[in-house]
Amino acid sequence: MGKKIVIALGGNALGNNLPEQMIAVKKTSAAIADLIEDGHEVVIVHGNGPQVGMIQNAMTLLTRSDPEKYIPCPLSVCVAMSQGYIGYDLQNALKEELLSRGIKKDCATVLTQVEVDINDPAFENPTKPIGAFMTKEEAEALVRDRDYKVIEDSGRGYRRVVASPRPMAIVELDTIRSLMESDHIVVACGGGGIPVYHTGEHHLKGAAAVIDKDFAAECLAEALDADFLIILTAVEKVAIHFGKPDEKWLSLLTPDEARKYISDGEFAPGSMLPKVEASVKFAESGKGRKALITLLEKARDGIAGKTGTIIVNKGGKNESDSTHR
Amino acid sequence: MGKKIVIALGGNALGNNLPEQMIAVKKTSAAIADLIEDGHEVVIVHGNGPQVGMIQNAMTLLTRSDPEKYIPCPLSVCVAMSQGYIGYDLQNALKEELLSRGIKKDCATVLTQVEVDINDPAFENPTKPIGAFMTKEEAEALVRDRDYKVIEDSGRGYRRVVASPRPMAIVELDTIRSLMESDHIVVACGGGGIPVYHTGEHHLKGAAAVIDKDFAAECLAEALDADFLIILTAVEKVAIHFGKPDEKWLSLLTPDEARKYISDGEFAPGSMLPKVEASVKFAESGKGRKALITLLEKARDGIAGKTGTIIVNKGGKNESDSTHR
Repeated sequence: MGKKIVIALGGNALGNNLPEQMIAVKKTSAAIADLIEDGHEVVIVHGNGPQVGMIQNAMTLLTRSDPEKYIPCPLSVCVAMSQGYIGYDLQNALKEELLSRGIKKDCATVLTQVEVDINDPAFENPTKPIGAFMTKEEAEALVRDRDYKVIEDSGRGYRRVVASPRPMAIVELDTIRSLMESDHIVVACGGGGIPVYHTGEHHLKGAAAVIDKDFAAECLAEALDADFLIILTAVEKVAIHFGKPDEKWLSLLTPDEARKYISDGEFAPGSMLPKVEASVKFAESGKGRKALITLLEKARDGIAGKTGTIIVNKGGKNESDSTHR
Repeated sequence: MGKKIVIALGGNALGNNLPEQMIAVKKTSAAIADLIEDGHEVVIVHGNGPQVGMIQNAMTLLTRSDPEKYIPCPLSVCVAMSQGYIGYDLQNALKEELLSRGIKKDCATVLTQVEVDINDPAFENPTKPIGAFMTKEEAEALVRDRDYKVIEDSGRGYRRVVASPRPMAIVELDTIRSLMESDHIVVACGGGGIPVYHTGEHHLKGAAAVIDKDFAAECLAEALDADFLIILTAVEKVAIHFGKPDEKWLSLLTPDEARKYISDGEFAPGSMLPKVEASVKFAESGKGRKALITLLEKARDGIAGKTGTIIVNKGGKNESDSTHR
């Protein structure tokens, strides 16, 4: 039986520049096409760390070249540009891979905004560095003129820091849903989505923020009533005591078990921690919903329960059992 | 009765930088919302001249800052980025305007590729200058290493020139159609679309080209079986003997009349000429199809036949007449 699957794909896995990206999307597309060939309905969410950094740097150089004409480009606009930059290559590589297997499906990139809460505590303490290094004078001018937050980065210069608030809602949800209903493979919420918040009754304003793509994928998976949230990473399974003699790889986790490991500090912030947190949130959001953390090339086996780490509520692993009790 | 309308909007009308764009999209949205309020089904195609130039310049500065890491960004990728840059502001301004009128409709930007013929004669003689000025040495390196075509621009330095081939097909046509069927206002073919051509059986490759947005809109209007192609410009009507004592504003033109004026050299290449050519092509492509050339703020009156220049086949202006003969 085909499942509805939201896949979260790392921005790092997409390469640091265009030639790297063109190679990376081929490998990615082969693995995703496997899932589509198996009859699953797939939506792809991707990160954009290196890519939005590159775009932000390019736009900063432009501003420096002509400050009268070009204001510093807001982060929300850079994310919008990165969705075009990545989506174009990703949708084409996927369509090509599908056609080469004789599967005729449309692949589309939806420019996606994700709503955040401007009162999210993350905005009080922005910690995520983005964009180019600056001199002290450049940094001070941006703090003064544009209300930027900056940090001094271990003697290498100053960098802008932004908040990483939690996603609240996917603005283009109906668009994504319509396209899925008409048999599209959709690339959405690129870079975690363009971060926006409501000001006034009908106005959405771009936020100086980046949204974690794993949480954005989780938010989308809940809204689409997906069966699976697959978070792709650089290891086949989640481990506790990672890198220590008593390292232990985990195949199945309940949300409660995961929460205990989280409070024990088992997972690295900014790395495995958000993946496990997003997985727990999804597993708890509805009956039978499963999150899978694994390698790109193991996604197919992971869905079949052969590898990876599955996070699911007790009883959710094999639902047919519970109906016989 | 609601009509199906494809609107072609100039990139210049969207401003040269972000603050200008944010003002421009408000004005644009008000005029487009009028048409939607009248019950018409609308798809928006926009140009991207100043915007893709800006992005191309920013990416060139990035390459110059680190040539080892960043190859010159292909034009197709810059167009993809410009679709995100413009679509984000345009779809939001339109949605806000509609909501403020109590109209609840989804507005979505579709990353759109447009197929061109790599044997189009335009590729033999590229004439459209894009991007930053270069020194002779920089230009020669790009000619040698990347097969660029360059021109010397009246003593101001060297610039890259690219082809402007005719659009053959809209790759994401089914995506646009699906969204229209589910009551979306779609922004598509931004900048005339990402120019691509087929290499091999299933591979689409980006072309070093820019597609005229009026011709892209025409191609889309034909494929969608639209009733109206509206090409917005800086004058209320098309004129012959423009700027001369015997200047004459035209309200209604048949394709044959338009072709005669074209051969008389009445319309400026790169300005009114492609608009009239695209209009003629659309008017001739099917019964009752009308093209309208006018100002943004006159589009509503133009559809009602009160102003603007309508290009339509004989008998197409008032079809009810012909059925009574």
